[in-house]
Amino acid sequence: MKEFKVKVEVRLKPVVLDPQGKSVLSALANLGFEEVRDARVGKLIELRIRDGSAESVRNRVDEMCRKLLSNPVIEDFVVNIEE
Amino acid sequence: MKEFKVKVEVRLKPVVLDPQGKSVLSALANLGFEEVRDARVGKLIELRIRDGSAESVRNRVDEMCRKLLSNPVIEDFVVNIEE
Repeated sequence: MKEFKVKVEVRLKPVVLDPQGKSVLSALANLGFEEVRDARVGKLIELRIRDGSAESVRNRVDEMCRKLLSNPVIEDFVVNIEE
Repeated sequence: MKEFKVKVEVRLKPVVLDPQGKSVLSALANLGFEEVRDARVGKLIELRIRDGSAESVRNRVDEMCRKLLSNPVIEDFVVNIEE
């Protein structure tokens, strides 16, 4: 058993409207940051996992993303694993 | 003027309790993912910025993080810039 650090990035799919991103964009413009053309807000989920192998971790984390961590209808996810 | 893609990762500082992470951890355990030892939830903010240089982008984004994108009292941020 080893301990893995896993970073999951969850983003809205590019075709999905992002009202939180639009709020950030307009707040930045109000503060004078007018060079910002677009802003999107996603989630960063960091897990510590004890498991036998990186492949097993990848399969399990994919399943976690599909079942709980992301909404596959509107979000994409990317998984990075570090030993 | 070039366009830069900037990725900002905002995390709670390690000493700060993360109730959202604790909820994720217990929901994962309830779904049978008992190998997960810890979960922390942060934000992933992606910006498109038009600016003259990567240094200028870095300075401006640091300022955005301090003023709006993060709460420096309880959060840390990491900025990645791609041209």
